[in-house]
Amino acid sequence: MSPSDMTVSQLGEFGLIDALTEVLGTSELGPDSVVLVGPGDDAAVVQMSDSRMVISTDAMVENVHFKRAWSSGIDVGVRVAAANLSDIVAMGAHPTALVVALGVPSDLPVEWALDVARGMKKEADRLNVVVVGGDVVASPIISVTVTAIGAPRERIITRAGAQVGDVVAVAGRLGWAAAGLAVATRGFSSPRVLVDAHRQPVIDYDLIQSAFDHAHALCDVSDGLVADASHMAKASQVQINITTEALAIADPLRDMGLALTENPMNWILTGGDDHAFLGAFDEANVPTGWTVVGQVVSGSGVTVDGSAFIGPAGHTHFAQ
Amino acid sequence: MSPSDMTVSQLGEFGLIDALTEVLGTSELGPDSVVLVGPGDDAAVVQMSDSRMVISTDAMVENVHFKRAWSSGIDVGVRVAAANLSDIVAMGAHPTALVVALGVPSDLPVEWALDVARGMKKEADRLNVVVVGGDVVASPIISVTVTAIGAPRERIITRAGAQVGDVVAVAGRLGWAAAGLAVATRGFSSPRVLVDAHRQPVIDYDLIQSAFDHAHALCDVSDGLVADASHMAKASQVQINITTEALAIADPLRDMGLALTENPMNWILTGGDDHAFLGAFDEANVPTGWTVVGQVVSGSGVTVDGSAFIGPAGHTHFAQ
Repeated sequence: MSPSDMTVSQLGEFGLIDALTEVLGTSELGPDSVVLVGPGDDAAVVQMSDSRMVISTDAMVENVHFKRAWSSGIDVGVRVAAANLSDIVAMGAHPTALVVALGVPSDLPVEWALDVARGMKKEADRLNVVVVGGDVVASPIISVTVTAIGAPRERIITRAGAQVGDVVAVAGRLGWAAAGLAVATRGFSSPRVLVDAHRQPVIDYDLIQSAFDHAHALCDVSDGLVADASHMAKASQVQINITTEALAIADPLRDMGLALTENPMNWILTGGDDHAFLGAFDEANVPTGWTVVGQVVSGSGVTVDGSAFIGPAGHTHFAQ
Repeated sequence: MSPSDMTVSQLGEFGLIDALTEVLGTSELGPDSVVLVGPGDDAAVVQMSDSRMVISTDAMVENVHFKRAWSSGIDVGVRVAAANLSDIVAMGAHPTALVVALGVPSDLPVEWALDVARGMKKEADRLNVVVVGGDVVASPIISVTVTAIGAPRERIITRAGAQVGDVVAVAGRLGWAAAGLAVATRGFSSPRVLVDAHRQPVIDYDLIQSAFDHAHALCDVSDGLVADASHMAKASQVQINITTEALAIADPLRDMGLALTENPMNWILTGGDDHAFLGAFDEANVPTGWTVVGQVVSGSGVTVDGSAFIGPAGHTHFAQ
């Protein structure tokens, strides 16, 4: 029986760890690697470029964040890696390494678990980030918890730097993943472009890094534009006024809104899984490719078109 | 309704995060703190003492690693923090910070989740380690994934340094947690000293650190003495011969072995959850408080009293 036909219980814990390590390609590392001690010891050791260290952790749980019916292991691996890498990048930092804790049911096909690793590696490779270690545990449902570390640039960019007079601008898509989830939840697999947006975020890391020199404040939009703008407003002790006119409704979102009798602007204002980025800038210093969507004024909270936002402020994990 | 009467869905995600942050005490940090950016931003930023960074992650899952029937939130918090801190210490490093991803059912009492944080903080405080960030997600079962980072001393101590002629020595208890699990699994709550050993490991970090100058190889015993000695033997390309005569059977283990008609030596040789430590030393340099339990010779694998070990080599997470 080849590993591709096996379940994880048939392969066993140590066999699975060996297979995952092989996929991640960190068992043999070149002399230029930042990895001083790779997988297989009590802990990994990484050579960082700075003694200041940025760290973030994000978990995804089966049937909460994804369903096997419409997401592959590769989708989940890309998504969880992207969620973590985008948190590091959002601090104005360069990601260095990931570790992963994988909870797997005994009857999970080995290939599904290896696909999670393949997806993580695919996204990590985009930023020359290595997966240096992990833990595999039994679990009745699949769970993937990734922790990313990175090295900040000289100036750490938090959410707290937005200044009265700044504009806020967005890089990346908004609402696509939320629309895709709405489609998939109803049992549809098309339009593919929306379902794919739910399966895997598409992050333009170069576009985010182009903001590092000028962003006064920066965050990834993981809770939704209104919710994350609220976090930025609170941390910066300012008010952020969003103008929906600046938020173009792409054709697939408009069409799907009509089909599902949903207002597509709600997906744009509250969807988080696209991992777009929100930055505050001097109006003269908005980087190319970023879209100005609002203003920073004195006050507190967030307005949308001049009013308090009526509707869900963003994704909440605990249904009442 | 006070938070202590609430479920996590009644308090909500952001309320729970605020309450957890308050418990962990990292929202207000003094000028000497290593935490440059604490919880609440996309990522935390930590000032390390070295640009080399040690990192390890460990997950614990309800009904796999613990049951609510016999473990409290504090027990689980102490245990998952200890598992991670011991991995960092086992590299000859000083732990600096933890992040945690907490998966919680909607109907979980808030106090249970806060107790996990209290337990983590209790164990972390022992080493002046701070919890700098985390993620809270909904999950049908409780899961706690902790990632620890630390700074290595000049010499990183891996599993690969055991040398022919060394002795191997153990610090800490072996088999107590496994015996406690055997007791709890049968529905008993006493002897308390054994059940407590399963609930929370008791790690003497000073005793481990006393080995940093002299250990040729070091690991924590998390898979079981035979299994972890096997990992050390493989990484060091040596054979390790364990002598059971050197492994004293404490009275509670002897008594419980008789009561359950189990051989207590199996708990000692295969139990991992005590987080004892295994080190390889020059015979003249075994630190005070460490117990010599075997020899390093040329060859491969592990023998127990001169023979291959018959029995479970250690805990395996996936039942066949």
